[in-house]
Amino acid sequence: MIIIGEKLNGSIPTCGKAIAARDEGYIRDMAKRQAEAGVDFIDVCASVNEGELETLSWMLDIVQSVTDTPISVDSPNPRVCVEAMARCKKPGLINSVSGEGDKIDVVFPAIADTKWDVMALLCDDTGIPKSAEKRIEVFEAIMARAKEFGIAEQRIHIDPLVEMLCTSENGIETVVTVMKYVKEHYPKVHISGAVSNISFNLPVRRLLNQAFLVLCMNAGMDSAVLDPLNRDLLGMVYATDALLGNDYFCMEYINAYRDNLFGPVDR
Amino acid sequence: MIIIGEKLNGSIPTCGKAIAARDEGYIRDMAKRQAEAGVDFIDVCASVNEGELETLSWMLDIVQSVTDTPISVDSPNPRVCVEAMARCKKPGLINSVSGEGDKIDVVFPAIADTKWDVMALLCDDTGIPKSAEKRIEVFEAIMARAKEFGIAEQRIHIDPLVEMLCTSENGIETVVTVMKYVKEHYPKVHISGAVSNISFNLPVRRLLNQAFLVLCMNAGMDSAVLDPLNRDLLGMVYATDALLGNDYFCMEYINAYRDNLFGPVDR
Repeated sequence: MIIIGEKLNGSIPTCGKAIAARDEGYIRDMAKRQAEAGVDFIDVCASVNEGELETLSWMLDIVQSVTDTPISVDSPNPRVCVEAMARCKKPGLINSVSGEGDKIDVVFPAIADTKWDVMALLCDDTGIPKSAEKRIEVFEAIMARAKEFGIAEQRIHIDPLVEMLCTSENGIETVVTVMKYVKEHYPKVHISGAVSNISFNLPVRRLLNQAFLVLCMNAGMDSAVLDPLNRDLLGMVYATDALLGNDYFCMEYINAYRDNLFGPVDR
Repeated sequence: MIIIGEKLNGSIPTCGKAIAARDEGYIRDMAKRQAEAGVDFIDVCASVNEGELETLSWMLDIVQSVTDTPISVDSPNPRVCVEAMARCKKPGLINSVSGEGDKIDVVFPAIADTKWDVMALLCDDTGIPKSAEKRIEVFEAIMARAKEFGIAEQRIHIDPLVEMLCTSENGIETVVTVMKYVKEHYPKVHISGAVSNISFNLPVRRLLNQAFLVLCMNAGMDSAVLDPLNRDLLGMVYATDALLGNDYFCMEYINAYRDNLFGPVDR
């Protein structure tokens, strides 16, 4: 499972405050703790109205001063993503493109001959498609463009777009249908998503997030944007991999427990 | 989801002690709390070497003095199960039969013309079959006997036999294969099991139990022997039902939360 640590995001209130106050210690600490939790990428998102590239660059430098974990450069602005790539010491992940506007035209040429991964959201200029069929169309269109630029399937992470459960009439059927399609037709493409979106506006969100993660992994998810400092959620990733037969005799589960990544903190 | 509360079982050390001491208060309290958690059946298992029927009867009387929740009469001895039926004020569940010995010959005639449910374990005189194929054979043999006695499919709960994950080479594949077979060929038969068996000998068992429950429900499980006082596990049942589209606009999830069945205790 590829884990993209989500804690360094200006849209999270405490992190937003730390960014506004240029609190280096906060950024450093959060980067370090996520790296220690074993994430594959540290997502870095400034989420500011003005001076995004400058703010992002400030964050990237601090993160890279404490860890060499690859960065997930996160911005709604594809140009900011591309400019920030140069600030990264090693290839990471562009988060994200989609069928909207010229995102792909800006990002795909920039990463074509690199080792960067890219997260692609299955929406386009018409918004977030309601049906699985339409999302699959957006997916196929993105894959066609990726092929054009020679971007290998294993560099692509697909976010089928997790919407809140409380307004859904069919549970998670749409997102699972899309995941299964991707898995079946492009087995090397990573299936990803922002897990916690599922539980907006519902009580005891952690239970829904955990159960959703398990169901997504069962449907083929092998990459996720999540809080790696949530020990139960991280433990659930290891538990599910073991249950799904991806962890020979539970060795990874047991090792992660021994490394104190989940379970009781004091022991 | 049909929940069979597992707390009144002499093989659980605290409960075993309470039974040995004939501690009525313990039995009463555990029956009440499980009933309040909304279980469909309260499992009652004496688990004593001598005087099982007497002990079981004592327990049954206490349980039925505080709740009218149906009983799951639990004994490895089919004759004890059948004799205990008479002590129950309303139809419940016989836990359990299997392909072993004369269990079916004893139990099926006794419940044939009643409203009692029955739990059937997919093992026989050769032990617990290793392969899914062999368990399916045992299942089909049990179904043939049930048909003979006119026991309707919806009265049958199948326990495909949950074994510990730590010694499995293919994760939960065997059990999931059996569940899917049952679901496909006998959609009215309930798929059940003792969830917590999965995590024997592994650390942080609750995470494995929760993730396993989610995967089983996804594979068709609609009945389970579990601890209903484990608020996270119970909440996971509601969360999973909502995610799987079995709970229109999450109303049951929200109501169970409002009824304080899961989530923070003090609020």
